[in-house]
Amino acid sequence: MHLHCPMPKFDFEFITLGHGSGGLLTNKLLDSGVFDVLKNDTLNKRHDGAFLKLEGEIAFSTDSFVISPIFFPGGNIGELAVNGTVNDVAMCGAIPKYISLSFILEEGLPMSEFWEILVSIKEACDKAGVIVATGDTKVVDKGKGDKIFINTTGIGVVHPKSSIDIDNIKTGDRIIVSNQIATHGIAILSVREGLEFETTIESDTTNLNHSILSLIDEFGQDIHLLRDPTRGGLSSSLNEIARDTEKGIIIEEQHLPIDQQVSGACEILGLDPLYSANEGIFLAIVSGDKADEIVNRMSRFDNCQHASIIGTVIADHPKKVVITNTMGGKRVVNMQIGEQLPRIC
Amino acid sequence: MHLHCPMPKFDFEFITLGHGSGGLLTNKLLDSGVFDVLKNDTLNKRHDGAFLKLEGEIAFSTDSFVISPIFFPGGNIGELAVNGTVNDVAMCGAIPKYISLSFILEEGLPMSEFWEILVSIKEACDKAGVIVATGDTKVVDKGKGDKIFINTTGIGVVHPKSSIDIDNIKTGDRIIVSNQIATHGIAILSVREGLEFETTIESDTTNLNHSILSLIDEFGQDIHLLRDPTRGGLSSSLNEIARDTEKGIIIEEQHLPIDQQVSGACEILGLDPLYSANEGIFLAIVSGDKADEIVNRMSRFDNCQHASIIGTVIADHPKKVVITNTMGGKRVVNMQIGEQLPRIC
Repeated sequence: MHLHCPMPKFDFEFITLGHGSGGLLTNKLLDSGVFDVLKNDTLNKRHDGAFLKLEGEIAFSTDSFVISPIFFPGGNIGELAVNGTVNDVAMCGAIPKYISLSFILEEGLPMSEFWEILVSIKEACDKAGVIVATGDTKVVDKGKGDKIFINTTGIGVVHPKSSIDIDNIKTGDRIIVSNQIATHGIAILSVREGLEFETTIESDTTNLNHSILSLIDEFGQDIHLLRDPTRGGLSSSLNEIARDTEKGIIIEEQHLPIDQQVSGACEILGLDPLYSANEGIFLAIVSGDKADEIVNRMSRFDNCQHASIIGTVIADHPKKVVITNTMGGKRVVNMQIGEQLPRIC
Repeated sequence: MHLHCPMPKFDFEFITLGHGSGGLLTNKLLDSGVFDVLKNDTLNKRHDGAFLKLEGEIAFSTDSFVISPIFFPGGNIGELAVNGTVNDVAMCGAIPKYISLSFILEEGLPMSEFWEILVSIKEACDKAGVIVATGDTKVVDKGKGDKIFINTTGIGVVHPKSSIDIDNIKTGDRIIVSNQIATHGIAILSVREGLEFETTIESDTTNLNHSILSLIDEFGQDIHLLRDPTRGGLSSSLNEIARDTEKGIIIEEQHLPIDQQVSGACEILGLDPLYSANEGIFLAIVSGDKADEIVNRMSRFDNCQHASIIGTVIADHPKKVVITNTMGGKRVVNMQIGEQLPRIC
């Protein structure tokens, strides 16, 4: 799976302010690395912007990535930045096509780390089927950034069978989560805190577009909303949906898929997995009578093996999310207040 | 010209990490300010991405802005971020339509400063005729950023009469600069160094799209390339064009338009205006026989009053830029090496 991209010989070991000057050093950095790794016909034009040919309705999404640490179990900031934006475009029911790539580098970043991130970006792009169409590189003085921040902005073409629209959500719709929750948050926390588990908990960062698009192909009209519950976790996404639809949401705790180690870590650390960040999962709000069929189909995808119907859209308690446990207990799940884990993506 | 947008009463005075959590505080910040200022039908959907309807060929450009200081004579980082991307899209011969807006805020940024930047963003969008279609807000811990970094990524529709393509450049084409050079660089330098002049030198940041598009309307085929010589100054843009066309460029020093105060400041500071950053100007490479007509037309635009033909594309000394002075002297102008003035945009 990994690209064979040995780092070329640079005549500098670290990023300097000059690499952000727009002059000779910027061009040198681009010529001797960035363009070679990312090359494609669009980017190769080297204009201030890219020219794209697109047919149909466009989906457009942006995210800046500031995760710390930049390398973590299961990935790094580069692939996270590609997957994050690819997934946001896919959540619009669109086929991601192009991304822009903008770096804010901190003076002193080792070239070897920049190179590793760059190669991961290329691998993630190839996997998702997108190309980097245009980009930008800025450098800030040491102490005014944190190694590397990345913005990616994505463009996709809406799938003709997609009917994603929050207004399509009806009472009785079921809520599906595509895979185990809380994994990314706990993976990052464990590396930050130096926690050790039997096996390393790895971030689930991945591109979801291929799975999503084959679902839309098959179940188009019955998929009413897609959302990736990244920052703020499941609780924030569900609360936003309840707020914006003015309907209630009920979640059954026992149907929340979660890895045993992740669940154990949450318990030890006193964290609620509903508030923990996710990367490689999505929520689908689907027609009630198709939910079983959809979840069965999903569980055959590599990255949705633990897909589960976790709840229902109801008329009761509008704008609120309530969770029930196996004992029959109920509690309201609010949106995350404050910050459980800063710089998670 | 200025919007009447008094800052609402926030129950916090400074940005905190929680405002980047994706949870309640993020939503509070967006609801009580960002969405009110920037509101439009596309943004109001509040999905992970925006849905856009566009016809024709698309231009796509990205830039991250890290300028220091964030407020400077003639503008602030907010309007700079809008104008910069609007202009990059316009340089593609396209009509800018939508931008994405992504903030990386440093914990502790005063809300009043964030508000002022936000209002400037809205004003700049209105002036350029673009809307913010989608966005993102991240917060980094104090000392891991520098107040505010902004990424804007723009989408436009290529003007049907545009034939911008570096391959269209021919020997004999003339090079026009649309207005006085080096102003932005000297404005930023003077505020950083606390230099005083008779009158304040203000950044020339502005949107160029309306002027560009009316030129393309009138002279479509005769405009072969547009470039805004921001970071790296005129020298870097001209060198890139020489490199990519494999032709020579000759510039006549006496035709370079420059404000007297700016020129004086350059002399005192030992700076070459050819390497100083620009914001509100562009280079146009145009058919030789239309150059006079084009420059005359341009000088009637408010933001191109000092438009001037500064040089010619020639067959001699391919890939090199040479400047002649009034005494008949010649010198090669290289691309900027290293960094004259970091974080200029």
